[in-house]
Amino acid sequence: MKVAKFGGSSVANATQLKKVGEIIKKDSGRKFIVVSAPGKRNKQDFKVTDMLINLGNAYVNHESYDEFLSIIIGRFREITTELGVSEYILKDIEQTIYSVLERNEPSDQKLDAIKAIGEDSSAKILSEYLRTIGLEASYLNPKDAGIIVSDEPGNAQILPQSYSKLYTLRNRPEILVIPGFFGYTIDGKLMTFSRGGSDITGSIVAAGVQASLYENFTDVDSVYTVNPNIVHQPKEITSLTYKEMRELSYAGFSVFHDEALIPAFKERIPVCIKNTNNPDAPGTFIVAEKESKEKCVVGIASDTGFSTLFVSKYLMNRELGFGRKLFEILEREDVSFEHTPSGIDDLSVIIRDNQLTPEKESKIISRIKEELKPDTVKVHYNLAMIMIVGEGMMNTVGIAQKATTALTKANVNIKMINQGSSDVSMMFGIQADDINKAIQSLYHVFFEDNKR
Amino acid sequence: MKVAKFGGSSVANATQLKKVGEIIKKDSGRKFIVVSAPGKRNKQDFKVTDMLINLGNAYVNHESYDEFLSIIIGRFREITTELGVSEYILKDIEQTIYSVLERNEPSDQKLDAIKAIGEDSSAKILSEYLRTIGLEASYLNPKDAGIIVSDEPGNAQILPQSYSKLYTLRNRPEILVIPGFFGYTIDGKLMTFSRGGSDITGSIVAAGVQASLYENFTDVDSVYTVNPNIVHQPKEITSLTYKEMRELSYAGFSVFHDEALIPAFKERIPVCIKNTNNPDAPGTFIVAEKESKEKCVVGIASDTGFSTLFVSKYLMNRELGFGRKLFEILEREDVSFEHTPSGIDDLSVIIRDNQLTPEKESKIISRIKEELKPDTVKVHYNLAMIMIVGEGMMNTVGIAQKATTALTKANVNIKMINQGSSDVSMMFGIQADDINKAIQSLYHVFFEDNKR
Repeated sequence: MKVAKFGGSSVANATQLKKVGEIIKKDSGRKFIVVSAPGKRNKQDFKVTDMLINLGNAYVNHESYDEFLSIIIGRFREITTELGVSEYILKDIEQTIYSVLERNEPSDQKLDAIKAIGEDSSAKILSEYLRTIGLEASYLNPKDAGIIVSDEPGNAQILPQSYSKLYTLRNRPEILVIPGFFGYTIDGKLMTFSRGGSDITGSIVAAGVQASLYENFTDVDSVYTVNPNIVHQPKEITSLTYKEMRELSYAGFSVFHDEALIPAFKERIPVCIKNTNNPDAPGTFIVAEKESKEKCVVGIASDTGFSTLFVSKYLMNRELGFGRKLFEILEREDVSFEHTPSGIDDLSVIIRDNQLTPEKESKIISRIKEELKPDTVKVHYNLAMIMIVGEGMMNTVGIAQKATTALTKANVNIKMINQGSSDVSMMFGIQADDINKAIQSLYHVFFEDNKR
Repeated sequence: MKVAKFGGSSVANATQLKKVGEIIKKDSGRKFIVVSAPGKRNKQDFKVTDMLINLGNAYVNHESYDEFLSIIIGRFREITTELGVSEYILKDIEQTIYSVLERNEPSDQKLDAIKAIGEDSSAKILSEYLRTIGLEASYLNPKDAGIIVSDEPGNAQILPQSYSKLYTLRNRPEILVIPGFFGYTIDGKLMTFSRGGSDITGSIVAAGVQASLYENFTDVDSVYTVNPNIVHQPKEITSLTYKEMRELSYAGFSVFHDEALIPAFKERIPVCIKNTNNPDAPGTFIVAEKESKEKCVVGIASDTGFSTLFVSKYLMNRELGFGRKLFEILEREDVSFEHTPSGIDDLSVIIRDNQLTPEKESKIISRIKEELKPDTVKVHYNLAMIMIVGEGMMNTVGIAQKATTALTKANVNIKMINQGSSDVSMMFGIQADDINKAIQSLYHVFFEDNKR
């Protein structure tokens, strides 16, 4: 039994939904289908969820929302008409929208209910379409599926009792189409997950029904060894482990929300990233353990948008509690950080730029000056991080040498190296401007140069 | 005006003291002389300070101490007789010892007063000897010199008012011989510095009198580029900066107590390490700033005896306060640590083995398990650290490449790299067993291979 999740681009219009129908028909193991809300049909297009958020905000602010409403309904009308499914489906969707809007409930709960309409409608349309192409299929509301969540609008967490209820769905004979992105509290309130939440639903259902495979259909053939915007047509990764995926996702591999995979990872269910537009491509498998660790570097992720907070103080390493106090200052400003490389008398904190506002930065700096009395405290901007990832790397002599040689050849000054804390990755910090030549050179050494 | 400090081996016997006399005579700038207690004359010998500690312990425990007393007095008799200085000096030393023993004072203060006899006697002997070779010289007690310290027996800290008093000593016409290792509280109690404290006195005097140079006479010609126990006759370092010295001292460069240099460093007074047995050798200069940064790697320090506490937890980097809580646990057990390299979901803490007892280790591990609920927590032993040091390193492309290539050639597996937190060093962690081949290969690449 497989769980297949289809993202926004896979359900964006009738043409895409027909491809989805083909894919489901082709493999009778695809019993549990999870869908996103319709995404963009082209670059200029809107996502239905964004339009629903506009609608919701207008509604709770007592502004006019008719235009948003008609755009949303228009979009669903187009899809259902082109697919040739029963008119009843569109009426059902419209009715759901009106009843959500009319219901008396607090604003944040109302917003969640409105946001969820996209996925819910996708599931209704797809299940009906599957029936028209001769498959036995039902729409299954998350409440009936047993997806029970915490009472946190926009950031619901799955509750453990969900899984045993989900497991009973294995006895259902037909294909079940479940909308992604939301669940219900014990007392029946609709709550959405964080954004990207259809991946979460897919992963939860895969864990719950103990699927043999969780297929995640997107619009790329696979996960690439490096960022395809930097290297033209890079090699594809055929298989990687959860741990490798996690490290790659950290810096720039945004195929999906890697945290969404936790429920599937916990049950050691293999995941496959596939392309709705090219379903015969093998895709990328994400597994608990790899069979062969021969090729130990699987991918190189990179991302810009980092800064470094540098603090130095003579004899820092004799000062008990220095690091702890520094982290407390960051914590009090609600700033989370990525890494904390330290020298004898220096400590650097690598922070994503989105964690720092100029106000927070100056507050943090003045508190550090006041409380820690350092010799130096400053922030360096425009840092890019490179993560070379692969299980087995730690026990292979020469990986660091290959990497540093590649960067030196490309004339890239290495601002930072962090190896050894993680056993599946090695991190480099460089000037953001150098990122393209750095990645190109690393790609060449690790994936093209077969002599080494 | 120079301050010259002579260590234990330089004042160990009459032969050595005669060399010291020659050295002082040769340069009329050597106005302030600081001396240690007599050290070992050969490998099997004892240090006078150790014997004084035995004496002190026996005394406060009401045990017999006559034997220790006669060994100590015998040693001073031998020195004064061979030097041919006035008998009055030996009598003065004996009288001082008896009056210290008879004085009514608390035990810890008594112990400090006894420990200080070695340096005090050296200074009396040397000043008298200098007069016999025709120099104008006086013994100067630290109280009269103005070395005022905090009331912390065995760990006295210099008080800032000392410096202006010391500055007035510039007006004294003669050579002043000051015993190292101790000072006096405001109310006149003798207090010793921490062990190695003659270096501290030298550094304080150099800062106080605003010396043009602080000469630190030892028994080696200079600071070496690498540990001479690993590489035979390694190249000498002619000049290095305070910052470089500090990083080198951290791991294995124990020429002296680097913390002792802080008072001199703060006043930017240059320091020169010289050899009493070969005073014409240029020695090693330690300066605030280097003129030429051409040769950017100045030395490679190494040390064994480290362990790593490794903690991993899925999604650790989203958990605000994780690092802070971990450091708090270590702090509560009074464990200070060296470095904290971190991955996405992992954090390692590098700890010197002397910081961890088995009891502390198991306490820390169980508290981490309980409070942080990690996926993994374990301790790895037998780590060696290598520190490649040099100002200007950060802006030189290819240093990391050279280092990793050297280690790879030597077939050394790099367990850890930490570069970028300090701007003058790069740190590698390797298996302790690999340390010799690693240092030999690095030495070859950075100091012998002139083609690079």
